[in-house]
Amino acid sequence: MITADIIEQSNARAEARLRADYAALGEHLDRRGIDIAAIKARVAAYGVAVPSWGVGTGGTRFARFPGPGEPRHIFDKLEDCGVIQQLTRATPSVSLHIPWDAQPAADLNAKAEEVGLTFDAMNSNTFQDQPDQAHSYKFGSLSHTDAATRQQAVEHNIACIDLGAQIGSRALTIWVGDGSNFPGQANFTRQFERYLDAAGQVYAALPDDWTLLTEHKMYEPAFYSTVVQDWGTNLLIAQQLGAKAKCLVDLGHHAPNVNIEMIVARLRQFGKLGGFHFNDSKYGDDDLDTGSIDPYRLFLVFNELVEAEADPGFAPMHMLDQSHNVTDPIESLMVSATEVQRAYAQALLVDRKALDGYQEDNDALMATTTLKAGFRTDVEPILAMARLEAGGAVDPVAVYRASGYRAQVAAIRPAVSGAGGGIV
Amino acid sequence: MITADIIEQSNARAEARLRADYAALGEHLDRRGIDIAAIKARVAAYGVAVPSWGVGTGGTRFARFPGPGEPRHIFDKLEDCGVIQQLTRATPSVSLHIPWDAQPAADLNAKAEEVGLTFDAMNSNTFQDQPDQAHSYKFGSLSHTDAATRQQAVEHNIACIDLGAQIGSRALTIWVGDGSNFPGQANFTRQFERYLDAAGQVYAALPDDWTLLTEHKMYEPAFYSTVVQDWGTNLLIAQQLGAKAKCLVDLGHHAPNVNIEMIVARLRQFGKLGGFHFNDSKYGDDDLDTGSIDPYRLFLVFNELVEAEADPGFAPMHMLDQSHNVTDPIESLMVSATEVQRAYAQALLVDRKALDGYQEDNDALMATTTLKAGFRTDVEPILAMARLEAGGAVDPVAVYRASGYRAQVAAIRPAVSGAGGGIV
Amino acid sequence: MITADIIEQSNARAEARLRADYAALGEHLDRRGIDIAAIKARVAAYGVAVPSWGVGTGGTRFARFPGPGEPRHIFDKLEDCGVIQQLTRATPSVSLHIPWDAQPAADLNAKAEEVGLTFDAMNSNTFQDQPDQAHSYKFGSLSHTDAATRQQAVEHNIACIDLGAQIGSRALTIWVGDGSNFPGQANFTRQFERYLDAAGQVYAALPDDWTLLTEHKMYEPAFYSTVVQDWGTNLLIAQQLGAKAKCLVDLGHHAPNVNIEMIVARLRQFGKLGGFHFNDSKYGDDDLDTGSIDPYRLFLVFNELVEAEADPGFAPMHMLDQSHNVTDPIESLMVSATEVQRAYAQALLVDRKALDGYQEDNDALMATTTLKAGFRTDVEPILAMARLEAGGAVDPVAVYRASGYRAQVAAIRPAVSGAGGGIV
Amino acid sequence: MITADIIEQSNARAEARLRADYAALGEHLDRRGIDIAAIKARVAAYGVAVPSWGVGTGGTRFARFPGPGEPRHIFDKLEDCGVIQQLTRATPSVSLHIPWDAQPAADLNAKAEEVGLTFDAMNSNTFQDQPDQAHSYKFGSLSHTDAATRQQAVEHNIACIDLGAQIGSRALTIWVGDGSNFPGQANFTRQFERYLDAAGQVYAALPDDWTLLTEHKMYEPAFYSTVVQDWGTNLLIAQQLGAKAKCLVDLGHHAPNVNIEMIVARLRQFGKLGGFHFNDSKYGDDDLDTGSIDPYRLFLVFNELVEAEADPGFAPMHMLDQSHNVTDPIESLMVSATEVQRAYAQALLVDRKALDGYQEDNDALMATTTLKAGFRTDVEPILAMARLEAGGAVDPVAVYRASGYRAQVAAIRPAVSGAGGGIV
Repeated sequence: MITADIIEQSNARAEARLRADYAALGEHLDRRGIDIAAIKARVAAYGVAVPSWGVGTGGTRFARFPGPGEPRHIFDKLEDCGVIQQLTRATPSVSLHIPWDAQPAADLNAKAEEVGLTFDAMNSNTFQDQPDQAHSYKFGSLSHTDAATRQQAVEHNIACIDLGAQIGSRALTIWVGDGSNFPGQANFTRQFERYLDAAGQVYAALPDDWTLLTEHKMYEPAFYSTVVQDWGTNLLIAQQLGAKAKCLVDLGHHAPNVNIEMIVARLRQFGKLGGFHFNDSKYGDDDLDTGSIDPYRLFLVFNELVEAEADPGFAPMHMLDQSHNVTDPIESLMVSATEVQRAYAQALLVDRKALDGYQEDNDALMATTTLKAGFRTDVEPILAMARLEAGGAVDPVAVYRASGYRAQVAAIRPAVSGAGGGIV
Repeated sequence: MITADIIEQSNARAEARLRADYAALGEHLDRRGIDIAAIKARVAAYGVAVPSWGVGTGGTRFARFPGPGEPRHIFDKLEDCGVIQQLTRATPSVSLHIPWDAQPAADLNAKAEEVGLTFDAMNSNTFQDQPDQAHSYKFGSLSHTDAATRQQAVEHNIACIDLGAQIGSRALTIWVGDGSNFPGQANFTRQFERYLDAAGQVYAALPDDWTLLTEHKMYEPAFYSTVVQDWGTNLLIAQQLGAKAKCLVDLGHHAPNVNIEMIVARLRQFGKLGGFHFNDSKYGDDDLDTGSIDPYRLFLVFNELVEAEADPGFAPMHMLDQSHNVTDPIESLMVSATEVQRAYAQALLVDRKALDGYQEDNDALMATTTLKAGFRTDVEPILAMARLEAGGAVDPVAVYRASGYRAQVAAIRPAVSGAGGGIV
Repeated sequence: MITADIIEQSNARAEARLRADYAALGEHLDRRGIDIAAIKARVAAYGVAVPSWGVGTGGTRFARFPGPGEPRHIFDKLEDCGVIQQLTRATPSVSLHIPWDAQPAADLNAKAEEVGLTFDAMNSNTFQDQPDQAHSYKFGSLSHTDAATRQQAVEHNIACIDLGAQIGSRALTIWVGDGSNFPGQANFTRQFERYLDAAGQVYAALPDDWTLLTEHKMYEPAFYSTVVQDWGTNLLIAQQLGAKAKCLVDLGHHAPNVNIEMIVARLRQFGKLGGFHFNDSKYGDDDLDTGSIDPYRLFLVFNELVEAEADPGFAPMHMLDQSHNVTDPIESLMVSATEVQRAYAQALLVDRKALDGYQEDNDALMATTTLKAGFRTDVEPILAMARLEAGGAVDPVAVYRASGYRAQVAAIRPAVSGAGGGIV
Repeated sequence: MITADIIEQSNARAEARLRADYAALGEHLDRRGIDIAAIKARVAAYGVAVPSWGVGTGGTRFARFPGPGEPRHIFDKLEDCGVIQQLTRATPSVSLHIPWDAQPAADLNAKAEEVGLTFDAMNSNTFQDQPDQAHSYKFGSLSHTDAATRQQAVEHNIACIDLGAQIGSRALTIWVGDGSNFPGQANFTRQFERYLDAAGQVYAALPDDWTLLTEHKMYEPAFYSTVVQDWGTNLLIAQQLGAKAKCLVDLGHHAPNVNIEMIVARLRQFGKLGGFHFNDSKYGDDDLDTGSIDPYRLFLVFNELVEAEADPGFAPMHMLDQSHNVTDPIESLMVSATEVQRAYAQALLVDRKALDGYQEDNDALMATTTLKAGFRTDVEPILAMARLEAGGAVDPVAVYRASGYRAQVAAIRPAVSGAGGGIV
């Protein structure tokens, strides 16, 4: 972890400027009838989960270029996640991926307490074969034609729930790569029937206070068809399984040009919006840093979420899910957590009463202008002030670099060679 | 209509070649264990509806270039449709569009009988303003913020049902252009609530033996959001309204790269596949001639339909829906009807028992090869023989051109000048 | 035009807040080492042309819903454009479309002087048939198989140059809809040879100080192939024709997911970037208001343009090109002109020296953060102050609405009924 | 290799049916004025290269599921490629990938002679780091900001040429993953300048009778920008480097909806079409089996190639480039080679004189029908007869399975465990 004095020294240097910017913004918002302190309070209370696998350098099927200090195991990963939370105060929990992170619950709990984190949704893995695995997932998992393979996948998911229950998790996220690469390879209908049956068995094992999140994705690793290919199929799953089953929306898992914020609105309207994987994309499931490509789209998603806050019991889970191929993963996750907060803050600034009126009057120009006024506002002082007041860093990246954390862990953790991707 | 002797003379010239090709194909299929006569019988029994508006030259927002002999009204259109059926024997019914085709039921029935046609689904129009209309659809129809506008749209749809009931139709197809062009222009949730409420009123007026078909479309004429934007929303509509409500799939109304045959499979699996608008597309809702761009995709849709034929009560409606900008519409519709039959015939040839086995064994290569063997077969002799035996033309386009029909109607119907599209 | 007192009264009410915001921003930018006055000066000097056709309500192939006071002719259009310039001080010139705007040069010049405007690029039209036209463009214009049709299109383009020369224009923009709707309809190679030959004849008639801008577009109105379908073909045209030929980039004319800013960079690098049509899009050539869908993409384009400002002779032409279907066109054009200025101002704020350093060091995170710092800054006070100081309106839309201009022209200009689009 | 008697026995069983089908097709084609023997002769003379890496099971960033008998090195790969050529007689050459296949030239030549193959284009690899590599390609290779890294990439490419020259290759294919994952990470212009400079050094080392093929790709592994992102940039490279530089078109490397056959036509028209990587795709660079998703698109590409055969010196290189994730790679490559031949045969059947006439007359319907008549013909008997007469297998997959080749090599080659993809 990073020592408090490094944070304090950096903050001390930045504080005067921040206070000036914050004061100016406060006056500006006051002229717009908005109380900056109220916005700041809501931002401060907001958190997004970090995925344990996100702190390792990602890769593509062509190559992976690790950096220094790659985490060796979940305990290293939790330390890295602890740093992110320490500096941003925006990422209070971690989402585990099993079997990568499978360790005794007591050890996980101890380490989490040590680094000041809790556990978010559990993630199962039936898209890879593990060394000791009886049945291969090459041709599918929950929807495999072979009953024993499906059973193995069901049991793995139940094991994830069991571990999760011991570490305070309350949700299981299922993403499968099941699908096909050729027309005719799979019978769409029977394949989905098998999926529903197997997922139903997992659902049956779910504790009462848990949520089952299923995640759709248009393609990859299957390249002709994917069993849970879009929100329509995802909705059917959630409807078939029951009230504890909801849909998870990953921002990068959609067809080109799709209006994602509208999917968010539909799932919310019918009580099936369960959570998010935040990231950004330009082409496919690029898993780029959240808000790095189209920040307005992220804002439009949060516009829906802020509107939905009034719904009773509305509490979708929020997680980052990115592949960090060319940056230090800790830096990317810190900046991305900030971007999520930024979109939230901007959405909070929208004058919803005025917006409603323009919508009712079909005054498209004033409606869109009103919405965009929230996005256009530079809320950075609010985010930074929230961090400062919570003991985090005004400038997390600068503090992180100054701290020498990466070099310190690189001295402990062995160097990893540049392994090839899936093609070799 | 075209005189029988023109057809007979043309057929006489083509018959020897056709019989040779048919015999050779019959022997080939026999070697594959397939009875050509059985396939021919099913093709002969298959029909696809023609849209009344399809016999006029289409256009874009930039321009429309009419041809000679443009139909003046529904009675001209029915004559053109009669020619298509006369030559192809594949298009026994016509789908009307109201108010364009609104005429006394008795007159419609008389003309239809005269030209040998029946009436398929009714189509309402709430995406254009009519001269005598009280409320404008500029900002929506069934989902408009104004209750009176929604009511007007509901009543128009009910009027379509009323007329349809008098001419033997059994379905109403609703497509609305409602949506928005700017983020914030419309509240997604409230807009869809209004849609559901209004559509529910139309549904309530539906006779017991009717089907309500709702049609989704990704975009156009609305360019930021569309109320019924995809099959997920369409499914929600059909679920909310009731058992008589089903989804209509237009092949050109999807996001880029979407696996349409899988959507067909999903809707079928959950009892909500109501019908099709056949056409083809390369970019957006291009409304190109069916099978002209990606004939294998059309085959894959029919592969699902042939598999579903075993489902009790499975009988989705089939209609062509194309915009003929650079061809004689009659020719395009004849060729397109043949392409739909072709895909059906090819799908009938698939060895489903072998395919099932390969799917069960995850033998992807043999499964896709088995499927493609149906597509690869040149079934033209089957289609032509079915036409010949039913009194149609072996070569519909050649007979049509030889008949001089277009010149004849051009002499009667006044020339139409090249009107601009929506941009001027 | 709008009386000065209406502007002054509105500005007077807004001025105190604006000055406070401007001062705060100035202080903030000063802390970042940026002189706000210098930025403001460059913004004030920036102008974007308005298309004459943009002040009329647009439409789609499905429908067009005109508003009150639709301009009847180019003189009405110039008045509307004059209002836009009067209030925004960002649109000093108008781009004409021939034959829609063909009028005696003296009359055009007189009206332009009256309303305080000059003339930007001329636009020819060979995608529609005019009543008196000898040869139809149904199957193409500059690339038509028929030599006489090509000749007609060439002569029309030369006539546009002739008129343009009399009204101070210095460029001709050619966009053709030529292409095909079916595989095989056209021979790609011969079609492009014909295009190059015909375009070469137009080029030969170009005055020495003119630029010929050719515009690519992926599809529409042709839906299988388009002759000038992308920047690759556009580049070949500019290379073949000569030094005065350059490429025009319309932001909505690209394939899904394409990196447009990179195309801008490539054309600039090879001296062939001639100009822009600004708008925004979510699906196809949606012609939505500039910056309304993806404002960051617009910023990234301007990031390239600001970098290129150092190139000797770099002066691409800038024009808005939008279809206003649900807003008052004057309002949309005012807001869009402001959005273009906004992107320019944001791009000017980027710390290019720091950015260069991070790029050289492959510090992706700091590079993108540095770039985004420009985008994130709310430059509205700079834009508004530039307008105020130039005699425009602090809030153009509010002043326009208060002025009653639309109602005034609606009293003079006859109401237009809601004509259908290209489909009927 | 597979013993001759296994092939002969299988062929003997299939021959009677094949001869019947061939005779029937011959008669049918004769009625269309086509000499089947002439088509067969051209098909028999056609060959497509196989990529050495294609005979190993592929994978994605998520996982790789190897099959039994994975080749250990280039000599195993050459044996597998030998089997493909033995059974299909359509794949006479192999394309090497360096450093994966780097071995002494004498050994490569000896093995190639043993298995009856020659060497096609060489492929360099600067998208992965090798264990002994001085400079990492994490941030690029030929376009890297660091001169030493660029130099290392240049030298590697020259080494590929050197080895290729010793084994009879005549071309080098360069594909780089260089690009960026964040807006601002790279300066587009300077990055491309560096690429051109480095590629120019490789070009300078090219023997006179060699071709340098550069390959564009829209995205992946870079997910915001790619240096050689499309055919426009690829064309600029070929123009800048010189006459020996040409463009390689991979069918899966384009933006959604792009008209690929038109790009083929443009590059051919300007003398810059150098070669192909054949495969198929539904979403991105899926590397699916050629013709498995959209066989008509493949046909349309070959329609351009057949038309271009008349061009003096027109001889683009043809190679398969696929990732076989769920099939036996040998089977997929055999079927894919056949699919390429199929498209070629179908394109040869097109009545080009009739097509030209319809194109000249703008008879879109007859033009597209004429083109499609080639595609619709089931040419399987021609392909199979060409194989039979050349000593290959009538049914390559059946013979291959009957031969037990996979089990034989699996007994020799050690099993490979299911390695994870790039994400872990």
